[in-house]
Amino acid sequence: MPYRAPVSEFGFLLDHVVGFSAVQQTERFAEATDDTVLAVLTEAGKMCDEVLAPLQRNGDLHPAVLENGVVRASPGYAEGYNAIAEGGWVAITADPEHGGMGLPLTVATAVNEMMSGACLSLQLNPLLTQGQIEALEHHADDAMRALYLPKLISGEWSGTMNLTEPQAGSDVGALSSKAEPKDDGTYAITGQKIYISWGDTDFVDNVCHLVLARLPDAAPGTKGISLFMVPKYIPDADGNPGVANSLRVVSLEHKMGLHGSPTCVMSYEGATGWIVGEPGGGMKAMFTMMNNARLGVGGQGVGAAEGAYQLALAFAGERKQGKTPEGTIIGHADVRRMLATMKADVFTARAIALDCAVAIDMGRATGEPEWQARAAFLTPIAKAFGTDTGCAVSEMGVQVHGGMGYVEETGAAQYYRDVRVTAIYEGTNGIQAMDMVGRKLMDGGEAANRLLDEIEAFADTAKTTLPDLAEAVWDAAESLRETTDWLVAQPMADRFGTAVPYLRAFARVLGGHYHLRAAMADPEGAHGRLARFYITRMLPEHAGLLAHVRAGGEGLMEISPDDLAA
Amino acid sequence: MPYRAPVSEFGFLLDHVVGFSAVQQTERFAEATDDTVLAVLTEAGKMCDEVLAPLQRNGDLHPAVLENGVVRASPGYAEGYNAIAEGGWVAITADPEHGGMGLPLTVATAVNEMMSGACLSLQLNPLLTQGQIEALEHHADDAMRALYLPKLISGEWSGTMNLTEPQAGSDVGALSSKAEPKDDGTYAITGQKIYISWGDTDFVDNVCHLVLARLPDAAPGTKGISLFMVPKYIPDADGNPGVANSLRVVSLEHKMGLHGSPTCVMSYEGATGWIVGEPGGGMKAMFTMMNNARLGVGGQGVGAAEGAYQLALAFAGERKQGKTPEGTIIGHADVRRMLATMKADVFTARAIALDCAVAIDMGRATGEPEWQARAAFLTPIAKAFGTDTGCAVSEMGVQVHGGMGYVEETGAAQYYRDVRVTAIYEGTNGIQAMDMVGRKLMDGGEAANRLLDEIEAFADTAKTTLPDLAEAVWDAAESLRETTDWLVAQPMADRFGTAVPYLRAFARVLGGHYHLRAAMADPEGAHGRLARFYITRMLPEHAGLLAHVRAGGEGLMEISPDDLAA
Repeated sequence: MPYRAPVSEFGFLLDHVVGFSAVQQTERFAEATDDTVLAVLTEAGKMCDEVLAPLQRNGDLHPAVLENGVVRASPGYAEGYNAIAEGGWVAITADPEHGGMGLPLTVATAVNEMMSGACLSLQLNPLLTQGQIEALEHHADDAMRALYLPKLISGEWSGTMNLTEPQAGSDVGALSSKAEPKDDGTYAITGQKIYISWGDTDFVDNVCHLVLARLPDAAPGTKGISLFMVPKYIPDADGNPGVANSLRVVSLEHKMGLHGSPTCVMSYEGATGWIVGEPGGGMKAMFTMMNNARLGVGGQGVGAAEGAYQLALAFAGERKQGKTPEGTIIGHADVRRMLATMKADVFTARAIALDCAVAIDMGRATGEPEWQARAAFLTPIAKAFGTDTGCAVSEMGVQVHGGMGYVEETGAAQYYRDVRVTAIYEGTNGIQAMDMVGRKLMDGGEAANRLLDEIEAFADTAKTTLPDLAEAVWDAAESLRETTDWLVAQPMADRFGTAVPYLRAFARVLGGHYHLRAAMADPEGAHGRLARFYITRMLPEHAGLLAHVRAGGEGLMEISPDDLAA
Repeated sequence: MPYRAPVSEFGFLLDHVVGFSAVQQTERFAEATDDTVLAVLTEAGKMCDEVLAPLQRNGDLHPAVLENGVVRASPGYAEGYNAIAEGGWVAITADPEHGGMGLPLTVATAVNEMMSGACLSLQLNPLLTQGQIEALEHHADDAMRALYLPKLISGEWSGTMNLTEPQAGSDVGALSSKAEPKDDGTYAITGQKIYISWGDTDFVDNVCHLVLARLPDAAPGTKGISLFMVPKYIPDADGNPGVANSLRVVSLEHKMGLHGSPTCVMSYEGATGWIVGEPGGGMKAMFTMMNNARLGVGGQGVGAAEGAYQLALAFAGERKQGKTPEGTIIGHADVRRMLATMKADVFTARAIALDCAVAIDMGRATGEPEWQARAAFLTPIAKAFGTDTGCAVSEMGVQVHGGMGYVEETGAAQYYRDVRVTAIYEGTNGIQAMDMVGRKLMDGGEAANRLLDEIEAFADTAKTTLPDLAEAVWDAAESLRETTDWLVAQPMADRFGTAVPYLRAFARVLGGHYHLRAAMADPEGAHGRLARFYITRMLPEHAGLLAHVRAGGEGLMEISPDDLAA
């Protein structure tokens, strides 16, 4: 795999597109100077190029396996993980009090994306640990934090999240795992969990499971759910892994891709657990973990897209076929179109993820509700559009390769297979869109309109330099505003049926904005030309999507199950 | 797999959407009465449901393998193939003189689609034989026809097409396989061919390879290419398989999917071949084969889409998750949206394929150039949109399944992996689009405008009954006409960069037309409701696509290879 971490592109986006300087100007993140950030990205990028990228094929060719109840990771993954842990890349945002770097999430978002582009299946492991660290920082008591955080942050231990049960997927409230209080203040956890990514591995000393379960007599639905820490090995008095807990990996799923990441069926059989947060507060704590993870999964999509793009670009620059000025297929107009489309949407999805991360950092650093609302609004877009882009770009990457894309040897198909799950896990992209038109528009569209104000204001300033592009972006934002106002006036139930096209239209318009910012910073350069490509050719997609939204959710349900079976 | 052949839906389309009665009114196809067609479709559908559909997973779980130089097919494939052959389904359009049924290609298109939906990897085998039969009927001399056609039509022997070489994929003219004339009038064929689907199998008595190769001193490029029949076993005096020819399967490709279909690297080592048609006429003969095959491959996309849709629909009707009136996820608006989208585009893609087949039948039966031009115009759309729909619908099928879509056991992932190659082989979908804006607009847009005339005329008649839908379709057709006229005025080189969005926009508008026809026939029924869904929610996509086209091909090439690598 020829992956090269796009360090300078991150620099460009931070400087010119997503306003990272605001983060640097806060007291909390004052140490994240340009020099520091560049050094961090350069060092992480080097590890991705040299250590992680060579492992990408290993996971596919030699999947993780379950042997005698223990998961054995793919060849080289232990070394790759050690490089991540030793570099401090597991948890660069974590509190320095427990060994973290305390860097902005924006920087972590870039590092996570690079690791995803280099080796998606391995990167999922520290991504999950990051979510667990976040949950413990916010919800665990001092003792649990002191015991677990240093080990998780250093990478000695890894973390998982256990939500799903066979009958409880998107409907988390339907879960039935039990937690029985014991006399010593711990709980006996019993139940089966499925789709547990990295539910076990042989390259860490302990695997810490955060498990959702119900206390006796708990309320039905999500309100009766509590969160428990259930480690594979129970820490001894010194905090080292002690006796084995009563839990086991029952089996691994046979998946379409991401074979390097073991997806476990877990059985908890009276396992010892410690409650995290309040009884009945499980969903709240889990949402802390999931919010972080949603942005992270969006970044996985971007990373996979970048990797698939680089592979396709390299192929197109080498493959001779037909007569072109360049001598290779990169000279064919349709191949050029595909590559430009891929690159333009990698840019869009990356900018959304970074902008979301900036908003999260600003929310944390300033406590201002406007930043927090912006972060909350952008999170489902970052997750869904990032992963949709991962799927779409890797799909085009296969097509650029022609017949060789369908043959596994080139690696193009692996990107396509691996990234597909990112549109499903951590809340399907449909769920993300429902979150957006539901919870995230409950403010009457205030957060949405603030974003649109910003887009239109920037377009106004760009109108003298790039009149046609600025006008197209302004018009698109205004159309989106009209539809947003209309949507906010619809009953909630009617919004869900057109949530997905609405989310995508929003992402398209955001893309217009980010590309316009890039073009203003680099009007005669590659970013300027790519912005013109995006705004004239890809941004118009928003109109069809908004038409779909305006057709309304009500009419959709007129198509009955019988009609679908007709 | 719960596949059920959509026989009654074919009946509806033939009667109300694609005007099949015109074919029935020709002298040539007078025997294809309603009763006959219904009997054929019912019988073929029954075989698909009962014999082929149960084989679908076999090919994936137990791929074809190369053992001691011979390809051993997946378990049950021999029985499945025998059912196809014994039913006469290999070649129902073939000339009765050699054992065919002489039925319209429209009927074969429906049967092929059903077989594809039931078991795509096996169906590819007879599809290739059909193309070979077509090529021999048109280009072989009497002796070759008499020798090969009965065996191919009965299914005793199968046929392959050998175009691609490592350095000659989409650029067929770069091929270098050699054909040396021998004293007895045969040729010694030498060269390596790749991506040869069903290059060998153990369930037929002979495998007949049509091989493109160059005679000594042949002109460079496509003009110097001739076509040769190179059978695995050389027929003896009685026409039975005799001595083995000097050819072999070197290896099988390790593909992303379609594992039941062996994709062979073939080596010809002075193999005995017979020329088909004139020296230098190889491309012409091959295009006969490919034209047929392009429509057939489009139908593969539709069939896979239908299969993936049925699987997702069944899952959605069983999976309980969250509270809905139906008790299953089919009651969730976003799931309903996905299923309706899938069904609406299966309808569109199927209608395009059948309309194309009707035009081919009419062209053959009447010899009228207008029908032939219509067929030629629709063929690349049928191929590209049919297979794009196969990919998109199977992709949505995975999403409907949620996490279970990513797990191989459900079969959703298999559709997604299997169908992906159809957008690549038989000319990539980019090549299809280039054919459309190149050769197929060389008439100055005449064939395109005739289709648009028909669409607008029908919309005019529908305006009293379904005013809003009819107007939307009319407007879309008119926008497409304006862009078509604009495109025809552009230099050829500039058309290629926007060929793909143009083809897709054309398919979207055609879909509006077919859905409107369906709605007029069934205004208060399922088709009417699905038409409203399509026309209000999916047809608007055409606007963004046409905007992309109008941005022009010239600007696209301003993005340089250096920009892409920046």
